[in-house]
Amino acid sequence: MRRTDTLKAHSIETALPNAGAQDGVLEWHRIVAESDWESLSSLLAEDVIFHNPSSFEPHQGKGPMQVILPAVFSVLEKFEYHRHFGSKSGYVLEFSAEVGGEQVTGVDLIEFNDEGKITDFVVMIRPAGVVLTLSGEVGKRIAAAQVSTQ
Amino acid sequence: MRRTDTLKAHSIETALPNAGAQDGVLEWHRIVAESDWESLSSLLAEDVIFHNPSSFEPHQGKGPMQVILPAVFSVLEKFEYHRHFGSKSGYVLEFSAEVGGEQVTGVDLIEFNDEGKITDFVVMIRPAGVVLTLSGEVGKRIAAAQVSTQ
Repeated sequence: MRRTDTLKAHSIETALPNAGAQDGVLEWHRIVAESDWESLSSLLAEDVIFHNPSSFEPHQGKGPMQVILPAVFSVLEKFEYHRHFGSKSGYVLEFSAEVGGEQVTGVDLIEFNDEGKITDFVVMIRPAGVVLTLSGEVGKRIAAAQVSTQ
Repeated sequence: MRRTDTLKAHSIETALPNAGAQDGVLEWHRIVAESDWESLSSLLAEDVIFHNPSSFEPHQGKGPMQVILPAVFSVLEKFEYHRHFGSKSGYVLEFSAEVGGEQVTGVDLIEFNDEGKITDFVVMIRPAGVVLTLSGEVGKRIAAAQVSTQ
């Protein structure tokens, strides 16, 4: 394959995020910084899709994200965002954190619609072994929260 | 925290990749498309750092990447790149693939120096369970390759 064909085969184009995505990512950072999970719903599109780091099948709709994200952030310690990467309608946010004293790094891949609402949210974390620890602990906290509100 | 403080606390700035990064990512795509792993060395900075999805500690220098990446790509089936995100000096490349019939998605976070050489390469893959399968299989192939060249 010649270099020009490779160029055609893979669009390497990136872009600066549009106004909707910029507004949306600022609100996301505010929610995380303030643990203001009650505001999360208004940042999500109705048909938002959430892809967690431990299972392939995505979650559909606002409900799962409103339950899972606060639980995840309650388990992650020393959470900090680092590099940001952009496309026309989305961001990749790199982060570091600790889970039970073990260090992890991860990314959020977030797509926004023109109104700045999140339409798609993928989380990937490494190393994989600690993801399984995190996933188990998040499951326990969600279960405990559901019992306590019954 | 007021919105303006949040904005200060988190730089949401992204950028279009510079010429070095653009050249570098094109060469990376060519190497992957042609499985031309013999050319990988000349795309890597001497002090390149590689972060794999299954262990936290990074690998230093060209050697580990030249052994690990061909083995990883020999295990991944139906590998395909999708969304690209950019920063001033790097890219995030999203991909999908299969490992033993199981679907995965992942990202490469690649930083380039001004000469277009890779200085830092992070791989994250989900779901975590399949990463452990992948990691085990890659380890076997690297061991087998080392035995066969002795």
